[in-house]
Amino acid sequence: MTVRQLALPELVSHCVRLGIGAVGLWREPVQEYGVAAAAELVRDAGLTVTTLCRGGFFTSDGWLAENRAAIDEAVTLGTDTLVLVSGGLTPDCPDLPSARARVTEAIGELAPYAGERGVRLAVEPLHPMYAADRCAVSTLDQALDIAERFPAEQVGVVVDTYHLWWDDRAPAAVERAGRTGRLHSFQLADWTTPLPAGVLTGRGQLGTGAIDLRAWCDLAGKAGWTAPVEVEIFNEDLWARDGVEVLEETLEAFLKI
Amino acid sequence: MTVRQLALPELVSHCVRLGIGAVGLWREPVQEYGVAAAAELVRDAGLTVTTLCRGGFFTSDGWLAENRAAIDEAVTLGTDTLVLVSGGLTPDCPDLPSARARVTEAIGELAPYAGERGVRLAVEPLHPMYAADRCAVSTLDQALDIAERFPAEQVGVVVDTYHLWWDDRAPAAVERAGRTGRLHSFQLADWTTPLPAGVLTGRGQLGTGAIDLRAWCDLAGKAGWTAPVEVEIFNEDLWARDGVEVLEETLEAFLKI
Repeated sequence: MTVRQLALPELVSHCVRLGIGAVGLWREPVQEYGVAAAAELVRDAGLTVTTLCRGGFFTSDGWLAENRAAIDEAVTLGTDTLVLVSGGLTPDCPDLPSARARVTEAIGELAPYAGERGVRLAVEPLHPMYAADRCAVSTLDQALDIAERFPAEQVGVVVDTYHLWWDDRAPAAVERAGRTGRLHSFQLADWTTPLPAGVLTGRGQLGTGAIDLRAWCDLAGKAGWTAPVEVEIFNEDLWARDGVEVLEETLEAFLKI
Repeated sequence: MTVRQLALPELVSHCVRLGIGAVGLWREPVQEYGVAAAAELVRDAGLTVTTLCRGGFFTSDGWLAENRAAIDEAVTLGTDTLVLVSGGLTPDCPDLPSARARVTEAIGELAPYAGERGVRLAVEPLHPMYAADRCAVSTLDQALDIAERFPAEQVGVVVDTYHLWWDDRAPAAVERAGRTGRLHSFQLADWTTPLPAGVLTGRGQLGTGAIDLRAWCDLAGKAGWTAPVEVEIFNEDLWARDGVEVLEETLEAFLKI
């Protein structure tokens, strides 16, 4: 998503050229390209798919079929992790407690289906500024409270610095996620201000914002994270630029952390 | 601030007409009008000044003189509470732990000065989306952790629904604030989306957003809150309208909670 201006074949070939051995994919571009074709493309290039983004939105109609489809796509792509963004308030779930209860219930219904197919569901807490319209799960502790009701090989959590950096309880929660085998994805983006309208596309390139990314990488490392780290930056300015240039710049910024 | 388009004399006379017996004031319009003149205006009208907004910004230069001046203005206005917005990250305090330490240290320096003058300092946790550029204190528990280092008659906290509604730990923290005598101000605004650029002026009129304001009023009530409730809505649409109409509408919305 950081370089969504790149078509999948371009993304894959430049990842290979730059020695980036793993990539996180989003459902929309994968579907556009064709799921089986995308799977073949990354497999032939020798790339690992870290995660598929995203399932979830459990407070909206049609969530069950949609999420089963996302699990099936993860299987086809050969990734073991589906990221879940829970969904916000809806007429059905008009307040946070009911939305969070729905999320737990929905994951309970999905988890066995995912587990049978070797896919882990990774609950992603989003920044509290998204609590109303996008994700009622706002802290890593909340995500873990949900995940821990299910087997660790079925349900875990995502740690994304953009969403969690402000939370003084997050470091202990990262440790908890590691200790309980629930740390299923680790993502980086920086926090820059002012936020743009709608607050969706204001994430900062690594090293340009307020977050101590080195401290977060150390935290994840201490919690046992050794798998590839995803960089997930939604940023209109980056999207408007040459994607290859942004990919190279992002790699460079990552290596400087 | 909800009706900042109204000049102070207009605000005061319409409050009196509508039976609103207390008002929260901001420093800028008070300074423009003259602090002593503003004090006389509200006193002659029989209005109580709930709080003065705001001191704080402790991570910036000149905070000590600025905050002493704010305390003096509170004394002149006859309010017993000065609201503090802590300030965000600065070159001096480039990360959240150092910014939060500075806030604690600064309040320690100010608290006796305030206490001698009968003014309580009320630490306001702001929504985590302001952590970098406005207020490193993001949760009510953090604010209480700071306040509890000092006597309760010197330092307490503000509970503002807009900033805290998303936090599943806030209800227990409100109870903690009441129990320890730290609940010094209770403010209402609703949460509406999408947020505007800069995220400063997107607060919703009571009843138009995602927050269960009735539940929050009950929570404050159970924590012992019996003093006037402030309505603090920053909203460009409301500010663009006739101030008297907005004041009346706000009162009506408040009475419907």
